[in-house]
Amino acid sequence: MSFELVMDADEVADYVSEVFPQSDNFGFYVTDLSPGLIRVRMPVNESHLRPGGTVSGPSMFGLADCAAYLIILAHVGKVALAVTTNLNINFLSKPDGDLVSEARLLKLGKRLAVCDISIFLEKDHRLVAHATATYSIPPKS
Amino acid sequence: MSFELVMDADEVADYVSEVFPQSDNFGFYVTDLSPGLIRVRMPVNESHLRPGGTVSGPSMFGLADCAAYLIILAHVGKVALAVTTNLNINFLSKPDGDLVSEARLLKLGKRLAVCDISIFLEKDHRLVAHATATYSIPPKS
Amino acid sequence: MSFELVMDADEVADYVSEVFPQSDNFGFYVTDLSPGLIRVRMPVNESHLRPGGTVSGPSMFGLADCAAYLIILAHVGKVALAVTTNLNINFLSKPDGDLVSEARLLKLGKRLAVCDISIFLEKDHRLVAHATATYSIPPKS
Amino acid sequence: MSFELVMDADEVADYVSEVFPQSDNFGFYVTDLSPGLIRVRMPVNESHLRPGGTVSGPSMFGLADCAAYLIILAHVGKVALAVTTNLNINFLSKPDGDLVSEARLLKLGKRLAVCDISIFLEKDHRLVAHATATYSIPPKS
Repeated sequence: MSFELVMDADEVADYVSEVFPQSDNFGFYVTDLSPGLIRVRMPVNESHLRPGGTVSGPSMFGLADCAAYLIILAHVGKVALAVTTNLNINFLSKPDGDLVSEARLLKLGKRLAVCDISIFLEKDHRLVAHATATYSIPPKS
Repeated sequence: MSFELVMDADEVADYVSEVFPQSDNFGFYVTDLSPGLIRVRMPVNESHLRPGGTVSGPSMFGLADCAAYLIILAHVGKVALAVTTNLNINFLSKPDGDLVSEARLLKLGKRLAVCDISIFLEKDHRLVAHATATYSIPPKS
Repeated sequence: MSFELVMDADEVADYVSEVFPQSDNFGFYVTDLSPGLIRVRMPVNESHLRPGGTVSGPSMFGLADCAAYLIILAHVGKVALAVTTNLNINFLSKPDGDLVSEARLLKLGKRLAVCDISIFLEKDHRLVAHATATYSIPPKS
Repeated sequence: MSFELVMDADEVADYVSEVFPQSDNFGFYVTDLSPGLIRVRMPVNESHLRPGGTVSGPSMFGLADCAAYLIILAHVGKVALAVTTNLNINFLSKPDGDLVSEARLLKLGKRLAVCDISIFLEKDHRLVAHATATYSIPPKS
């Protein structure tokens, strides 16, 4: 499947703060965007830490969901507001540093989009979580 | 499978603030605890809302994860610190009010515990999300 | 959510052999059907056994998928051919006998239906697997 | 994470018929094996077709499960018999030809292994399904 972007990284970045109000707190930042692929960086701060210094599950869920949402947005545009219908996440190892989320489009249909998301530690590229997510794309009105 | 509690609701409730530091912000509150079943209430506040007034995905993920964690805790005790290895969540409808999460133990093995979690609107019991989660239970040392 | 049947157990049963050609080999049999709930029985035979006498994963997947498919069929009718988009299954214990699959509708929307499926041993009601599945419902033409 | 093979493709191939008795019917065939990665080919035949000529869900589940099982086997050896605990599969498009399943190890721990599996059409590399699976690895006795 070949994919075509309809927004560039700056347009997507501008849109982030709008849709993910918490993204500013989280410091989510789009570092790469190309057809079918996005990378979103999350610098770790106190708000998403658990005792022991690991990043909380909800924070990683939020990062995976955000990256997947943005890669879909970049391919379908703002007209349609995609809604998460399913997210399956595997936690693989304890993260102890800034994270990078890499989301790839597996499918972009008229009604459903499916993404594969890997979350890495930025410092050594160790994989800490992996998710797949499905989004419902409402009909254009 | 029959299940046996090793902690009561108060002991679990005391433990919540310890392990889920964000639970106080979220106002998580254990309303019911019986063998194999727990209910956790989450009053909705500004911090977990999205534009349009719906509860954010990460907030619901956190509520599901918390309820599952607590039902396992109540059955294995504090000795072992269960770790989420997999969580699969389906978002079914838009929540617009206080939420109740009901977690049931499907399996409690020596190494893995599996839970089924339903998230309802408190006011009309409408199902807004459903999850299943797997936790790894470390060996007792 | 309240659900309303548009087909009865016999109509569904007749339709099974048509859509699931392997269902005759498998001996799938609808034992109960009520709004939002179906039970499908699978007598175990040589074709779905693994060495050691346990039922194979694909056989349990097929049973879960079939029960979910049929409960949706019974509520939307034959006009629309639902397609499995996601199935998440947890294997909980080794099955060693005839199985019963119980599928409940969690959501029946215009475009997506979501089911929760429990697979039990018939003889002692032990839970051997649990699944959730999402189906896409094509627009009526 | 770096991975190290303990069996070569031939040893794995020999073992397939033993553990997956149905693999001979299915014609599963290991085409590639390297650290962390395996490819398994499944020529489509009558036994896994649905009306309309598409490959059945259980057949694709079986192919995903088999590829994941074999990549773990190739890295841990025959001593331990890995057991599927969770499999999440997304069906992306209708397959109409021979399939190739590519499984990658995401994690190989002492107790759990997690794999990512992509199923492609052999003729044009179109992605038809994607799965993630978790296996429990029993302690060596």
